Amino acid sequence: MNRLNKLSKWLEKENIEAAFITSPDNVFYLTGFRSEPHERLLALVVFQEKEPFIICPAMEKADARKSGWEYEIIGYNDTDQPWDFIEQRVKARISNIRQWAVEKNHLNVSRYEELNTRFPSSLLQDAELILNELRMLKTPEEMASIQKACEFADFAVEVGVNEIAEGKTELDVIAAIEYEVKKKGITGMSFNTMVLTGKNAASPHGTPGMTKMKKGDFVLFDLGVIYEGYCSDITRTVAFGDISSEQQKIYDTVLNAQQEAVKAVKPGVLAKDLDNIARTHIQNAGYGEFFPHRLGHGLGISVHEYPSITATNPLSMTAGMVFTIEPGVYVPDVAGVRIEDDVFVTKNSVEVLTKYPKSLQIV
Amino acid sequence: MNRLNKLSKWLEKENIEAAFITSPDNVFYLTGFRSEPHERLLALVVFQEKEPFIICPAMEKADARKSGWEYEIIGYNDTDQPWDFIEQRVKARISNIRQWAVEKNHLNVSRYEELNTRFPSSLLQDAELILNELRMLKTPEEMASIQKACEFADFAVEVGVNEIAEGKTELDVIAAIEYEVKKKGITGMSFNTMVLTGKNAASPHGTPGMTKMKKGDFVLFDLGVIYEGYCSDITRTVAFGDISSEQQKIYDTVLNAQQEAVKAVKPGVLAKDLDNIARTHIQNAGYGEFFPHRLGHGLGISVHEYPSITATNPLSMTAGMVFTIEPGVYVPDVAGVRIEDDVFVTKNSVEVLTKYPKSLQIV
Repeated sequence: MNRLNKLSKWLEKENIEAAFITSPDNVFYLTGFRSEPHERLLALVVFQEKEPFIICPAMEKADARKSGWEYEIIGYNDTDQPWDFIEQRVKARISNIRQWAVEKNHLNVSRYEELNTRFPSSLLQDAELILNELRMLKTPEEMASIQKACEFADFAVEVGVNEIAEGKTELDVIAAIEYEVKKKGITGMSFNTMVLTGKNAASPHGTPGMTKMKKGDFVLFDLGVIYEGYCSDITRTVAFGDISSEQQKIYDTVLNAQQEAVKAVKPGVLAKDLDNIARTHIQNAGYGEFFPHRLGHGLGISVHEYPSITATNPLSMTAGMVFTIEPGVYVPDVAGVRIEDDVFVTKNSVEVLTKYPKSLQIV
Repeated sequence: MNRLNKLSKWLEKENIEAAFITSPDNVFYLTGFRSEPHERLLALVVFQEKEPFIICPAMEKADARKSGWEYEIIGYNDTDQPWDFIEQRVKARISNIRQWAVEKNHLNVSRYEELNTRFPSSLLQDAELILNELRMLKTPEEMASIQKACEFADFAVEVGVNEIAEGKTELDVIAAIEYEVKKKGITGMSFNTMVLTGKNAASPHGTPGMTKMKKGDFVLFDLGVIYEGYCSDITRTVAFGDISSEQQKIYDTVLNAQQEAVKAVKPGVLAKDLDNIARTHIQNAGYGEFFPHRLGHGLGISVHEYPSITATNPLSMTAGMVFTIEPGVYVPDVAGVRIEDDVFVTKNSVEVLTKYPKSLQIV
């Protein structure tokens, strides 16, 4: 059963007349059409039985058709009122909408108010309940793309590590990484590539800039690439020259915490247990207060997607899930280390998709 | 009067107790704190007279403080419920919120429902009415950043044009552009750099890929850089080798349309008149149906911001505004040409901020 059918069946089961989907990632998941409309409206409207439709800027209509979408596509111009088209097309299919399924974490208040005006007294249900669940379990075709994205992420880290040299800036290294990756045909990174060194790396969310590499510092790489619409996300931390025993201890702590959590992944283990395995290890080493974020997050079409791997999430892992495991310890003015892999839950165990070495590398 | 004060005064005038601001761009505009929290909550809460506060992930608290914010900052962990903090802090300041100002084009339904649960029966007003107006008029400090961003955009086009050669792909050229720009200290592009050639350039929203440069085609560059938080956005189209007389005619049509619209910019002219000047010129040349988008858009902290320069917008231009002028003609299987400048409305006239030459260049 294809993805659209699954959504229609869910609408039927929940007694919801239609779904109004506007996030580019969910539109891509359901239709194969990838579009970034900025402030312009892009929407996919799905019904229980009636024919679905896409509404998009007129200049993207040909792309929507080329992506393989067989049903109606409404293209509107910048001077049109797309909501007139939506109201007309929906009412031609269903006389009375009592409930809409929308993406509550994506749909904005303006659009919510438009829905409310055009379809008075309709109630909103959360379409993300079903879409997150569907997207959480990857098909073999999706896995092929994610695996390729991970191979390119490994390659990107390799380029970056080879680029480290006294006096080069974080941005110099980023420029080299993205240059090599794009030369290989990658059109986009999963997020702004991060190369952080020195004090910058000792912040969990530093911003790369003109800080120069110097011996005795860690260099942290956090990056990912998009391959056929799917993201990878890897973090590696390497030493530039000799490091202190405290830096070494921090590295070993994070590495062991990461490896223990990875080893524990299998169907049936809870998200919070994974987080707690890594967190307990880091706490026992005395760095608990310096691990200020969750263990990881789901990964796929979005670089951060459902589920969240936190200390309180009781979700049980299932074969087919892909998520990150990325503990970190950031001691101000001393060192920042994070190590992150993308993992895939198999029938009985786990497959680590990112393969760049994790043992401490001294460049 | 600073930006926060202007927002507070507006709340007072409109009789709205508080503003709940969550878009990273508006938070940056009002506080100087630049953060990309992905799915995590970032909010700035502003009152008529009480002290404002920022709530952000705990790991970003130090960055928020470093950015110069003097008031309260609440940092929350991934396992906390940030809405508990928000409710408590707001109610400690104001016992009863009857109206919230929110960004209706940004706030999502989940957060709207949380506001509604925590502050029952409060009404929503649109904070973007005032924020768009404030951000529309650039200060000299903002103009300095935008001008620098435009200089880097000119440089980036120059790098790209020099890179054109038989057999190179669109992505090869993008890789070279971004490499050189990042080597100069630029941390981010305004959007995914576009280099399009051949049939790809004949679509207004093509996606760059492995298409190779070949003689007789146009090469279209659409790119921008972010400098100290402010965006530029430039488009140039150059010919690779000799082109046909129809390609030449399309180029001349777009160039003349663009120049006529630029020349017409001054305080008092209407957005729709600017659009119509360019559109009429293109229609008279017989290409009206191949110009499927608006003339331009405001530019600043966001690459697309208020106002929209469309054929129906009656807004009168004012000194201090910055926007793009970017007519395009895309004839399938023949040629795509777009020429875009960023312009600044001065007291009596217009200043063109992007300066890369526009006369037809044959590489």
